[in-house]
Amino acid sequence: MPDAVHRVTIKEIARRCGVSPGAVSYALNNRPGVSEATRARVLQVAAELEWVPNRAARQLSAARSETLGLVLARSAQTLVEEPYFMGFVGGVESVLSERSYALALQVVADLDEELLTYRKWSAERRVDGVIVVDLRVGDPRIAVLRKLGMPAVLVGDPTLADGMPCVWTDATAAMNAALEHVASLGHRTVARVAGRPDFGDVWIRDRAFDLATHRLQLAARIHHTDYSAHEGATATRAALAEYPRPTAIVYDNDLMAVAGLAVIQGQNLRVPEDVTVVAWDDSPLCSITRPTLTALSHNTVGYGAEVTRHLLNALTGAPPQAHLYSTPLLIIRESSAPPAAPPR
Amino acid sequence: MPDAVHRVTIKEIARRCGVSPGAVSYALNNRPGVSEATRARVLQVAAELEWVPNRAARQLSAARSETLGLVLARSAQTLVEEPYFMGFVGGVESVLSERSYALALQVVADLDEELLTYRKWSAERRVDGVIVVDLRVGDPRIAVLRKLGMPAVLVGDPTLADGMPCVWTDATAAMNAALEHVASLGHRTVARVAGRPDFGDVWIRDRAFDLATHRLQLAARIHHTDYSAHEGATATRAALAEYPRPTAIVYDNDLMAVAGLAVIQGQNLRVPEDVTVVAWDDSPLCSITRPTLTALSHNTVGYGAEVTRHLLNALTGAPPQAHLYSTPLLIIRESSAPPAAPPR
Repeated sequence: MPDAVHRVTIKEIARRCGVSPGAVSYALNNRPGVSEATRARVLQVAAELEWVPNRAARQLSAARSETLGLVLARSAQTLVEEPYFMGFVGGVESVLSERSYALALQVVADLDEELLTYRKWSAERRVDGVIVVDLRVGDPRIAVLRKLGMPAVLVGDPTLADGMPCVWTDATAAMNAALEHVASLGHRTVARVAGRPDFGDVWIRDRAFDLATHRLQLAARIHHTDYSAHEGATATRAALAEYPRPTAIVYDNDLMAVAGLAVIQGQNLRVPEDVTVVAWDDSPLCSITRPTLTALSHNTVGYGAEVTRHLLNALTGAPPQAHLYSTPLLIIRESSAPPAAPPR
Repeated sequence: MPDAVHRVTIKEIARRCGVSPGAVSYALNNRPGVSEATRARVLQVAAELEWVPNRAARQLSAARSETLGLVLARSAQTLVEEPYFMGFVGGVESVLSERSYALALQVVADLDEELLTYRKWSAERRVDGVIVVDLRVGDPRIAVLRKLGMPAVLVGDPTLADGMPCVWTDATAAMNAALEHVASLGHRTVARVAGRPDFGDVWIRDRAFDLATHRLQLAARIHHTDYSAHEGATATRAALAEYPRPTAIVYDNDLMAVAGLAVIQGQNLRVPEDVTVVAWDDSPLCSITRPTLTALSHNTVGYGAEVTRHLLNALTGAPPQAHLYSTPLLIIRESSAPPAAPPR
């Protein structure tokens, strides 16, 4: 289809709307510079005329796919179960929808498949950039994305990002707040039900937990899981079987905290009298349980939105930078209390 | 890049893996015919060699984008708040991840933008097919998708699908079960807090509600909303202000049911003694409230998976058909009881 045909079509829409062809182009490409009313009118007329972008426009837009990519090397069930991911994806979409960008969401089995997905997306120019989650210590994705020249924003701590743009929350400060809270209530033995030890965020939280429990002279133990409700329950049973039994448990996500609550109550232990429960990634789940759960509250929707804004900025040539989004805030609810028995 | 270079690369991987080039091709394209072990080995070697599909492969895959599209003409917040959507998207991903397909997820303001997205995706061959949700009565998307020749599966009743492939659940049977349940408890005045009246599913449920309440001789009223917690609360307040006050309320989603429960309890009315509450789209939310909520239980993850399988089948040339996925099952929980006062 020659370019001239395209001009006629844009011209046709412009003529019917009584605006310039440039304004039509702005409106159809969702760029600033036209009023909302004009944009709505142009979209309506374009729909009436069944306007389709021609090949020249396609080539132009091939340079810009107007799609960002997010690969998740976890079970698809994560999307269903973990409020963190729902919030995060919702936040990503809240920013993308303003700019008519799509999100390419792909669930894969492992990092090898994730790397292959990036190679494929890069070769086929399917995405303009990617959001990288679940950073590992010494993450192999960083070198591959650099080599591919694929714009990316990493979701995680700058110590894991090797100079790539990243957006992070201060997990160390948050962990300190949680442990100072349980120590001030009089707890002396605490457990941490953590995510996967190869995940950088978990590694940072583990280190913060070790340092803070040492400083606060708390007996402490970490149980690693895959973040699922099932392993959260299993880790809770393991923690409760220890001697001395921990009187406070800090969980790496709210799904495991809710599963752990059921295990604790199922063993005829009371929350908070016998066991204080603290969750991470506060979601509506934490306010709906009985008792409600003390949590490190974190605006996951805002986090997803902020990460997306940073990636879009990076696409316009903003220099790589590490951006601290927030420090999760400790929200004290019904699941916190001094231990019933004297510290053992 | 000439085709020969591509053969050399595939050959190189084949040589290192000790398998045939065909097996490598099957493994890299995620087609059946190679063992999981071989596939894993091929992916690993491909990653080590930094294999990138060449232009010929790109053109081949341009015919197949290995991406399905889902446009959501609702607020991005829907993804965060509504368990239905996260379950549905999780179910879609559970099938796509097995085949290394991506999902292009785009949130738009309205149907006009949705139609424009389909035109763009079609022109740019960005997706192999689309999943269409929130069917309307006389849905304008059907004609556009037909004209574009875009493979699609509609999520909704065949009466709305105009012969297009669709996957549906029997909302009429489910509504009958819910109303027979409240009638058998002795309720005589019921309210329905419904979704958007222009949505086909809501229209079908409205009709089923009218017919069943007439048959069961129940006084009845419908309050329409946008499905949000906020409008669910407002509609509940409106329902409770009526005379005679309804002693049972049936909600169109669990988010509104939970919001409604808070409104009812906030007016010092008891659930279930003063008001029986029934939710649709049973999610973990319904089991976590006090009291737990009677719900029309519906496997939303399985629904998303089934719709996706049907679309993938349609891509291989399966004839269009309407497929009944299930009838939501009434799960009776603590929020159901006979009305405290005698029927008025």
